[in-house]
Amino acid sequence: MSGWVTIAGLGPGDAELVTPQVTQAIAEATDVIGYIPYVNRIAPREGLSLHPTDNRVEIDRAEHALTLASEGKRALVVSSGDPGVFAMAAAVFEAMENRPDWQALDIRVLPGITAMLAAAASLGAPMGHDFCAINLSDNLKPWAVIEERLRLAARADFSMAFYNPRSKSRPHQFTRALEVLLEECGPKRLISFARAVSTPEEAIQTVELGEATPEMADMRTVVILGSSTTRRIGPWVYTPRRAE
Amino acid sequence: MSGWVTIAGLGPGDAELVTPQVTQAIAEATDVIGYIPYVNRIAPREGLSLHPTDNRVEIDRAEHALTLASEGKRALVVSSGDPGVFAMAAAVFEAMENRPDWQALDIRVLPGITAMLAAAASLGAPMGHDFCAINLSDNLKPWAVIEERLRLAARADFSMAFYNPRSKSRPHQFTRALEVLLEECGPKRLISFARAVSTPEEAIQTVELGEATPEMADMRTVVILGSSTTRRIGPWVYTPRRAE
Repeated sequence: MSGWVTIAGLGPGDAELVTPQVTQAIAEATDVIGYIPYVNRIAPREGLSLHPTDNRVEIDRAEHALTLASEGKRALVVSSGDPGVFAMAAAVFEAMENRPDWQALDIRVLPGITAMLAAAASLGAPMGHDFCAINLSDNLKPWAVIEERLRLAARADFSMAFYNPRSKSRPHQFTRALEVLLEECGPKRLISFARAVSTPEEAIQTVELGEATPEMADMRTVVILGSSTTRRIGPWVYTPRRAE
Repeated sequence: MSGWVTIAGLGPGDAELVTPQVTQAIAEATDVIGYIPYVNRIAPREGLSLHPTDNRVEIDRAEHALTLASEGKRALVVSSGDPGVFAMAAAVFEAMENRPDWQALDIRVLPGITAMLAAAASLGAPMGHDFCAINLSDNLKPWAVIEERLRLAARADFSMAFYNPRSKSRPHQFTRALEVLLEECGPKRLISFARAVSTPEEAIQTVELGEATPEMADMRTVVILGSSTTRRIGPWVYTPRRAE
């Protein structure tokens, strides 16, 4: 039997948001590779080996999956959300650089519901017009690049989704991001903090940017900043389709 | 029985990409409202009224759904992809402005796999780093706003996804968008055209921006422009997670 690597998105947490395509891939896999809390979402069964690993070992994980596939295994790499959005798909392709043998393998990427769009659905429609997604972690890029990108995105008047806004190892950066955004967008701009969307721990709040504090976010939070036209209606937050 | 409005994303076309949450909502609905080709994806059954309508009547459609819900019906508004991305969710909230009675209704938004992320999965991982999504239709915003946004997004070095790139009624604008992007990004930048992703008519091609022509896109195409680091590896296109 020939091996494969499939990189699949499990969605934000709720089993009702896992696509049938991904459910089928889970049923066919011999091995599941991923970050511990994501592998924990896969039901154990006979013939399935689970390989949970800690954070920040994305390339090791990718090489492990590619090695298993080259040995004939059906290796499923699982990400939360969508695997192409700040997740494992790019890491698998990075691991394939300079490895023509791995480039010849059967590789598939299966999309999933990314946190930003699940959060947007819970909030209403804050990404109802043009938007961007920015990873605020500076593990893989200089902070100056992030800050310049925030300013340009504000001037372009995008709604913005921020992934990985804050971690224990870099608590000051989200503080700085909020300062930059306040300078560019003013205190009345709406900002939403969506934690653990679609799970039993889901917690969502929307405030004006002038009232936002860094402690409103942690690493399980996706933060959504509205554009200049984003508004509240009843309990909802939405961005009209029309721009001036 | 109390009525509701649920705005649901059917994903890009493949039934295997419809979430179980949306499948359940379809089973519970009494009425389905939406653009003709999307309503055509819902299987008829006894007790379910289908209300397909033509393009460009989004607010009429939203008001129809809200009226049905206020009469006790369970109205499902269907969009392709994700309802919060250039689709019906924002239109429903727009229709609720100045209607406190409608704001008190039971409203839910159910996310779906948006075309950009399905296309990215087929291509590899072109949105593997920071990215933006821009609607190129100027039905609802001036072209000058779009052009300035394209320039700022290029300077921010986002990967970019373009929805509604080209229609018969405005063929010249995508030509102009390509000119602007060529000025900002140079001829070697990778650009992908993904048509009818996940359907039997799926057709995907990637070229350098200097070789791109407007005819490569139509209204069923999502266009993905890479960032400065986006590259090919074997048959794949991906953006590394690392930025300089």
